[in-house]
Order: sequence, then C-alpha cells, then structure tokens
Amino acid sequence: MLDRTDPESAIAAAAAAYSNWGRWGEDDVLGTVNFIDDAKRREGAALVRRGTSFSLSQRFDMNGPQKGWRRRTNPVHTMLDTGTDAALGNQGFPHGIGGADDVVSMPLQCSTQWDGLGHIFDHGRAWNGRPAEKVVTSEGDLVTGIEHMAAPVAGRGVLLDVGRVVGGVVGGGELPDGFAITEEHLRAAIDAHGVAVGRGDIVCVRTGHLSRARRDGWGDYAGGPAPGLSFTTASWLHRTEIAAIATDTWGFEVRPNEFDDAFQPLHQVVIPNMGLLVGELWDLDALAEDCAADGVHEFWLTAGPIPVTGAVAPPSTPSR
Amino acid sequence: MLDRTDPESAIAAAAAAYSNWGRWGEDDVLGTVNFIDDAKRREGAALVRRGTSFSLSQRFDMNGPQKGWRRRTNPVHTMLDTGTDAALGNQGFPHGIGGADDVVSMPLQCSTQWDGLGHIFDHGRAWNGRPAEKVVTSEGDLVTGIEHMAAPVAGRGVLLDVGRVVGGVVGGGELPDGFAITEEHLRAAIDAHGVAVGRGDIVCVRTGHLSRARRDGWGDYAGGPAPGLSFTTASWLHRTEIAAIATDTWGFEVRPNEFDDAFQPLHQVVIPNMGLLVGELWDLDALAEDCAADGVHEFWLTAGPIPVTGAVAPPSTPSR
Amino acid sequence: MLDRTDPESAIAAAAAAYSNWGRWGEDDVLGTVNFIDDAKRREGAALVRRGTSFSLSQRFDMNGPQKGWRRRTNPVHTMLDTGTDAALGNQGFPHGIGGADDVVSMPLQCSTQWDGLGHIFDHGRAWNGRPAEKVVTSEGDLVTGIEHMAAPVAGRGVLLDVGRVVGGVVGGGELPDGFAITEEHLRAAIDAHGVAVGRGDIVCVRTGHLSRARRDGWGDYAGGPAPGLSFTTASWLHRTEIAAIATDTWGFEVRPNEFDDAFQPLHQVVIPNMGLLVGELWDLDALAEDCAADGVHEFWLTAGPIPVTGAVAPPSTPSR
Amino acid sequence: MLDRTDPESAIAAAAAAYSNWGRWGEDDVLGTVNFIDDAKRREGAALVRRGTSFSLSQRFDMNGPQKGWRRRTNPVHTMLDTGTDAALGNQGFPHGIGGADDVVSMPLQCSTQWDGLGHIFDHGRAWNGRPAEKVVTSEGDLVTGIEHMAAPVAGRGVLLDVGRVVGGVVGGGELPDGFAITEEHLRAAIDAHGVAVGRGDIVCVRTGHLSRARRDGWGDYAGGPAPGLSFTTASWLHRTEIAAIATDTWGFEVRPNEFDDAFQPLHQVVIPNMGLLVGELWDLDALAEDCAADGVHEFWLTAGPIPVTGAVAPPSTPSR
Repeated sequence: MLDRTDPESAIAAAAAAYSNWGRWGEDDVLGTVNFIDDAKRREGAALVRRGTSFSLSQRFDMNGPQKGWRRRTNPVHTMLDTGTDAALGNQGFPHGIGGADDVVSMPLQCSTQWDGLGHIFDHGRAWNGRPAEKVVTSEGDLVTGIEHMAAPVAGRGVLLDVGRVVGGVVGGGELPDGFAITEEHLRAAIDAHGVAVGRGDIVCVRTGHLSRARRDGWGDYAGGPAPGLSFTTASWLHRTEIAAIATDTWGFEVRPNEFDDAFQPLHQVVIPNMGLLVGELWDLDALAEDCAADGVHEFWLTAGPIPVTGAVAPPSTPSR
Repeated sequence: MLDRTDPESAIAAAAAAYSNWGRWGEDDVLGTVNFIDDAKRREGAALVRRGTSFSLSQRFDMNGPQKGWRRRTNPVHTMLDTGTDAALGNQGFPHGIGGADDVVSMPLQCSTQWDGLGHIFDHGRAWNGRPAEKVVTSEGDLVTGIEHMAAPVAGRGVLLDVGRVVGGVVGGGELPDGFAITEEHLRAAIDAHGVAVGRGDIVCVRTGHLSRARRDGWGDYAGGPAPGLSFTTASWLHRTEIAAIATDTWGFEVRPNEFDDAFQPLHQVVIPNMGLLVGELWDLDALAEDCAADGVHEFWLTAGPIPVTGAVAPPSTPSR
Repeated sequence: MLDRTDPESAIAAAAAAYSNWGRWGEDDVLGTVNFIDDAKRREGAALVRRGTSFSLSQRFDMNGPQKGWRRRTNPVHTMLDTGTDAALGNQGFPHGIGGADDVVSMPLQCSTQWDGLGHIFDHGRAWNGRPAEKVVTSEGDLVTGIEHMAAPVAGRGVLLDVGRVVGGVVGGGELPDGFAITEEHLRAAIDAHGVAVGRGDIVCVRTGHLSRARRDGWGDYAGGPAPGLSFTTASWLHRTEIAAIATDTWGFEVRPNEFDDAFQPLHQVVIPNMGLLVGELWDLDALAEDCAADGVHEFWLTAGPIPVTGAVAPPSTPSR
Repeated sequence: MLDRTDPESAIAAAAAAYSNWGRWGEDDVLGTVNFIDDAKRREGAALVRRGTSFSLSQRFDMNGPQKGWRRRTNPVHTMLDTGTDAALGNQGFPHGIGGADDVVSMPLQCSTQWDGLGHIFDHGRAWNGRPAEKVVTSEGDLVTGIEHMAAPVAGRGVLLDVGRVVGGVVGGGELPDGFAITEEHLRAAIDAHGVAVGRGDIVCVRTGHLSRARRDGWGDYAGGPAPGLSFTTASWLHRTEIAAIATDTWGFEVRPNEFDDAFQPLHQVVIPNMGLLVGELWDLDALAEDCAADGVHEFWLTAGPIPVTGAVAPPSTPSR
C-alpha cells in the first residue's frame, strides 16, 4: 500500500529497487532500448501477416490538446509559399512551376512523442547517475539526446487494451479519469488477449482516454485527470524487461497522482533510474479495433523519433 | 535529347506522357503511394533477415546545411527547462523530481523529409489536376496534407547506390556535382546489385553527395550544384510504378538543372502530374555500407512523416 | 440608424463616403499618418511639462489573452543561454564572462500592436485601392509593410477616457461588454476633459476593458464581447483627420459587432478605405490615472512599430 | 596600457573601479537608466526644434546579418493569412472583409536591440551582485527582465559620429575594422560637434560599420572584426554617468577584442558591474547626415524595448 503522504520514501525505495544504472556500461545512452536486439526485430518482423498498416500518431494540429501550461502550446504551422500565390503568379519561378513550403514552431511534447532519457531527473541525477546539469543545458541534451535512438526503436509491439478489458464494453472501452492501472490490470489484459509480454517488447497501453477526448473534446486531456499506470507498476515495468511503453494519454501515469502532493512520481522512477523509454499522446484506437477484431495483439512496430540533436521529448512516427 | 532552351515544351510533353491524374479516382490523396498494398508490405517484412536497424535520417541540427534561402533556416531547438535549472532547484517541483522540455522552430524542409503532393504545382495545378489555390492556402494543404500519409509509407525498400556503381570506388563512391543520373545509370546499379525494382517499391538513390558534405563541410549542399536524377528519368519513374524515391541530396534532381533557365523541372513533372512521393536530404551512407558488405540491396523500410496537419514537406523518420 | 441585417450596404456607403484613396498620391504607404507633420511633432513635444514617462504597452507574456484562435497564441519566449548555465560553467567562455540570450516565437498581434495598412482588405482591395493579392503575399506586405512607419509615428497624443466619463466612477470607470461608443460619447469625453482633437492627433480611447481583465482574468478578452467604437464613428474618424487611434481592447470596435452576421465591419471601412492606423491591446490605465489626477489629457506620444520587413500587425512600444 | 595576455586582471580591476552595485538600492532593476529623471526628459523634449523624426532601427529582415552563430538566425516572418487568399475568397469571412495576419520567430538579438541587465554575467554574478542562476533561468530573467524598462528609456540623446570625425570624410566617414575607440576619440567627437555629454544622456556612437555593410554586404558584420569601444573607455562610461550607449555595430566594443584570448570583456565590466544599458545594431546613418548638415548633435530620443516578460535582449524601436 502506498503511503499517500510520503512520496519521497516511496520514490527512493522504488528507485533503489528498480535502478538499471550501470547495467549497460558507463557510457550508455539507450537504457531499456538495449533490450531490443536483432533477434527481437526479426521476431517482430515475422509478425507481419496481413500487411495492413496503422499510424499510431495523433496529428500535430493547432486544434490540439495543449493549453499553454509550461509554455506547451499546440504546433503553429505556417506557410512560406502557397498554392494561392503560385496560382496568382506571385512566385517568380520559370516555366510554370510553383511551390509551397512550410514552417512549424512547436514544443516537442505537443503531440505523439517519446520522453527521452534526459526528460526527467531524480534529485539532480539523470539516467545512469549522471549529474543533470552536465546532461541537459540550454544547448539541449548533450549526452542522451534523442538522436541516439533514431535507429533502434523498432521491434515487437504488444497492445494491452486495458480500457476494453477492464473498462469493459459497457464502459465504452474506457477507463475513468483517475483510474490507476495496476499490475493486476495489466495481467488481466495479457490473459484476455492471450499474448505474452517480455524482454525487449514495446508495450502499448490503451486506456480509452483519447477515445473520450475525441468524442467529448480535448477538455483537460493535457495535464488534467486521466487514467494511467499506477506508481506500483514500477516493479512490473522493471521485471518484464520491456524496452518501452506508450499510452494514449498525456502523461502515462494516473492523474491525479497517487500521493497527496506529487508530480509524476512514476516518471521519476522509470526514466532517470530505470532508463525506460516512455511514449505519450499515442493514438491506439484504430489499432485496438483491429486487434479486437482478429484477436491478435502482437505486431511489428516501428517508432523512431525525429532526430533533433539534443532533443529530450521528440515527436515520433509510430506505426505498426 | 533535351533542348536546353525549351524547358516549357519538355515539361509539357513529360507531364502529358506520365500523368497519373484520375488513376486512383477523383478524391485521391496518395498518388503513387497507392502502389504500396498489403502484399507489398508482407513482401517487405519478409526481407528482415538479420534484424539490424538503420536510421536513414540526417540530424535536425542547427549546424545543418540550410543557409536561409527562401527563409529555410536550420532548426532552432531551445529548452523550456533544463537539467541545470533542475540541479539548482529552480523548478519548484516536489519530491526531487526535475524535468527538461524543449521547443523547435523549423522549416519542414530543413532536414530529412518528404515532398508532399502539395509541395509543387504545374501551371497552377496541384496533384490530380486540382487548382493549386484551392489546395494549399495560408492554412496549409487542405486536401493532400501529409497527415494522409502517416500510415501507409512502409514497404519494400531498394537501394540503388549509383555513387558506388557509377562513381566507382576510385571516385570514393561519389558522383560529381552536376552529374545527371539517367535511366542507364539506374539500370547499371540494378544490374550490379542484382536487385529488381518494381511496382510499389521505395527506391533510395545514393549519389554520394552527403558523403562529400560530411567530409568537406556543407558548403552549397542546400541548393547548390549536386548530382541527381536527370529530367529524362521521368519515363522510368512512371513506367516502373515505384511508390516513392529518395536521395541523399537536397533536391532529388541534378543541379544545375538541365535547361538553361529552369528550376527543378523534374519536380514539376513527377509531383503534381505523376503523384510521386519524393524524399530528400536522406542519409544513405551507413545503409550503403551494409548493402555493399553483404550484397543485399533490398530491405524493409518504414518512413512515415510527422503528421503535421496540412503540411507539404514534413520531416520523416525513415529507417530500415 | 444601422440596419442590422445589411452590413454590406452600410460598409459600402461608409467606404465610399470616407475613402482617402489617392489623397496622398498613388504610391502612398502611410495613410492618415501623413497627417503627422513636423509642426504636429513640435506641438507634441511642447506638451512635455513634467517629464514623467509611461509605457502604454501590455506585456508580451505567455500568460496573455490569446487562446489560439486563428493560430494566435501568446508569445513563446525561450532562452538560448541562461544564468544557471553560466553559474555552473557550462558556457565555455574565457575570463569568467557568462551570457544569456533569448528567442521569441509569436504572432505579431499577440499583444500591443498596430494594424498596418495591409492588415485588412475590402472586397479584395487593400489601402489606396491596390489589389490585395499584389500587396500581401506569403512573403509579407510587399507594399505597405510596417517598416515604412518606423519613423513617423510620434506626435500629439490625446486620451479620451470614455470608460471614466461615460462608464462613470460608479461603474468603476469601465464600459460594459458590448457597449458601442458613438460620436456622442467621444464628444462627451472631449468636453469632460476640455481637450481638443484634430488633424494629426493620435487618439487613445480607454474603455476600461483591460482594467476588467486585469481584475477578473483574461477570460474572452481576445475576441469575445467587449466595449469598442461603434460602426457609426467612421464619419468622426474621417472628419477629424486624426492620424491614428488606439484602444485598450483586443479589437478596437464593439463586439459583438452591430450587424447580425458580421466581422469587424469598422475595420473594413477605416483600414483599407480610410487608411487609418489602428492600435489594439494598449494599456492605458496608468496614463488614465495620471490624466485624471491633473486634468491634462494631451501629451507627447511615440509609438513606432518594430520594423519587421513586410509585417502587417507589428508590436509597437507606445509610450508617453 | 592593456596587458593583452591578462584579461582577467584588467576586467577585475575595472569591475572594482566602476561598479555601481548598491548605488540605487538592493532591489534595483534599472542600473544607469536611473540617471534619466523627469528633468532629463524635459531637457530632451525641449530639443525638438524642427520636428523631423528618424527611426534608428535596422529592419528585422530575413536578409539580415545573422549567420546562425549561437543559434542567432535572422527573423523568420511568416503569414497566417494573406491578401492572395483574401482575393481568392479562401477566408470565409462575411461582407467582403479579408485579412492578413503574421507571425515571427526570432532571436531577440537579431536586429536593433538593447542588452538587458541580465544579458551578461561576471563570474556568475549578475547586475547588483545577484547570483546569475537566480536571475536568469530557463524561464527568462526573473529579476531584471526588460519589462521593467518599458517606460523610462526616453530622454536626451547625443550622437558622437566618431566615424566622421576620426575616420574622416576621406575615409568615407568610417572607422576600419578592429579600430578601438578610446576616450580621446570620444572627446574629439564631442569637441568637433560642440556638444556636451553628461549624466542621464543616451549616447549614440556611430562608427560607420553599418554604412560599410550597407554598401558591401553583410559579410561578417555579425560577430566579425569591427570598430568599437576600447576596453579602456570603461572609466569614461562610468565617470560621465550616461544612462545608455548604443552603436551601429553588432557588438558595441572593438573586435577582435583587445586581449589575446577574450570575448567581449567590456561587456563584462559595464553590464553586470556598472549596470549600463548597451544598444547594438542601431542604424545611425540618416541621423548622422542630419546632424552633420545642421551641426546639432543633441536631440530627443525614445527607445523603449518591446516588453517581452523576462527578456534579456529585446528589440527596441529607437527614434529621434
């Protein structure tokens, strides 16, 4: 049982128990992504049976969920050249060619993204025990920048549709806000789906939160109450040796958090201490429909980030 | 033979000969990506033998090739929160958690990207014959925005290392600037590699231009003289029914262009008329080394774009 | 009386009656700012009696009024270098020097600004009768860009504190939302203040809307209901030959607008047809306190815009 | 004489000799701008004789001097709506109104600007002795942000046209790159102009560097060799009790700097220690022509910054 009044102790205990510091050497920049080896990628590719393809990315759209908290706006996409100018002959190009170009300004966490290893610190320590102030300066993540993960994030994906299994069809396949997903719920989904989860897997947990936002409007989707993983799943996340986990929510873990005065305590354990790659703001709904229809919840998944040098929270383009 | 003085006629003839307007219906938003079907994706996935993974993306880096032409700068990546502030206790979070967030401002064509179907117009017409001014306005590409391509761009990739085959090991595996790659050169690479190219393939053409820039500095890599596809390859690009083509250069086609007064004439044929997906600024060097080592030039390739709503030239995260 | 059902006719009549097209020649780029001559600036400077100085600018702040409508966000200000990094020795500079640099991404209309002459069109016509599509393209305002106004916007300012005069001290010096300020109200303020308004003046109209937002929170300050000038003041605005007018509201004119189905009809008359410089989002509260205290409502005012080449809606730094 | 090998000692000595820490109290956020009082503003306003107006701002333009060093790009100005879209009926507004809106992304130091008091640190100390890491974090300058200077920067300006006086008409009124302006040169200009410089003045020093860039192209205008103030002028800058100083160069002080291994040592003395407001990238050419023509080198000057909350290096709109 969690002592709601003492996040400090709970975090310290979990950090100690589930730390992977040093596991892949002093210079490691990949964390649990090290669990994805060539064999795992072969295993993943062999899961392609029908050949259908899904994007697991939400759109990057001005009408998105962000509300400006911590300067996180929705992306502002503007045009440098347009078809209207081309059509009206404003562009000055020869032989009838016209063009459109565009620009974007956006927080890297505005839509579907990975939390890089430099995104969260625990008492001033970044992944592998490094001092935070030497890892992420104003110039970006000088050590574990997301460019290091451009290639390897591809392998066997598993969907755990907790929304559907636990929330039930009656609940519209959605968990209510504030619902803490425990190891028991994860196991229930695993059993219901008849799928194994193990070393090197990329686990996608669908809560149904995005389905609700799609239906009811964004509301407080970004940062407000939401279903998500319980702090107590840290043990399972460590023990299973999964490579990555992604959810259809803003913040991966349950909100409000399970301590009286806290902010994303599970992040504090799993990112800097465990080195786990965490994905947020994914769209798992179409995939979930498909998995429910044929009963197969494992698949080939690629989810490389845009390699912005030094980025800590890059957009990715997950697709199965 | 091209008449260097008359790009208008050459473009008009090629546009007429190689148009795919209407081929996939009036409402089509995918162009040649329609050639990628489930069978092609199964074929691609079956090519995963060793399970090694390569990113084919250049970095998105302030020290990139862009020089400001047409307001195309390199990406400006800044931090909203840093490890230094976390370490110094400036962030005000509870229980020792600290965080780093980031923001990017960038032209979508600053680094590895696709040219979406709304990127180029021919005499005021966009892909499928639509009026450019109704397709791409100041609000972006309202019809063929890249969000439509988020899922399907995954399949069988083929590397044609023209730099190595034609440029030769003596030439350092690099074609000189201004070298126009013709169908003959493409065939020479196909023959040398012993690989087939056909319907639905994603063809990667390595010229060696990026290898040179990596060695000698960016110089005029963005927009200056470069090896690239000859205008005359339009026939081959159409006939083979490939789904997409990508190069390790800024502009896909040879520069200077093959007409006296011209700007990217092959773009004008293949994007609005043929509906071909064109990739630019890819990094094919590590992949090419690997292909040369084992003699296998076909592979599973995923290259979904970041689905910025209405984008015409989005970053992608190609990887094999 | 306005016919609420027929904005088209009312606008057409006012545009015809109050047009200044051609008044300053075919090539004019200044509109009513032409009314500010050297004599007017001498007159303005002579009004400096005490030497106190007020900024009339709201802050450019992430916690501002914008809510994303038409991609108008609040400014996103980020640091390229910080004092924390300097203090921790992360910057690599010699002899103990450290630095901080910053970046901003913002819509030019996010806070205190001028509506440039290229900001509004009337049936495809920009100021002085020019075709809108030749004036403002994707490259900005090629003709009446705000850089032309960098120098001249300085002269005699007059505060008309309609909020205080008409709203009354009982009303907290604030006009209610939806209150249409008519010529009668402007005259009441002029009389109450004992100040003249005439050719070349820069008139500041305080409604109290910002005072309310400051007290109650931004709410719908940007784009929602607000006090503002009535459509019927077009005649007064033209007849007085003022150079510019600015308000403490988002949109200068009353909102909701005075027609059933309309959007900023007074803008459509005064910007493209009259060539009037309109300021929005100004902060007139401290100035108004001072004017009320000593009964003097005229002053020296400088309000040059940031000369972003081709800008249509630039930040300005008004101060008296 | 400066010992070129020992910037540390020279800086330490100057910092000690010319420090204003504590001079205006512990909470001061204005530095030498405190020297501008109401009397000074009255004196300034009384200098308006002819009423002509000059902008002293360079344009904010994509074709500007910045080359990307330390992520300082030129401003990227893009349109949210255009006249072309308005003319083609793409905007969906009623009664024939159309509009243009715009956005800018820019480093605050890209063009004419002030160095705020939080822009430079000396051994981890900001203005008034405050610890740099508590003043400027990732959230901006929390103490001396430029918003505090929105009102007061207006007063008596003095142009010292050192380019013309020392460079000579033969030299085209330009000082060569690397020319260190000493107190002797400043005095020569003062004498030649017959103008006094004293407490509270805003001094504009024209070197002619911008005239050269205007004629020959930007080249290395931003950061390269340039005429500028000698390190030895720190004494004069302190003794005269001027409120601010601005130049027509990128970096205010002479470049290369006057020590073998150094970076902007005079900044390190005058900003954090003296609290002096320093302006850079100003355009003094038209003003200088006018001053030369009538022999009057003093004038009313307003130069308020755009009050971006927490900014350290804001654009300003200087005009006389």
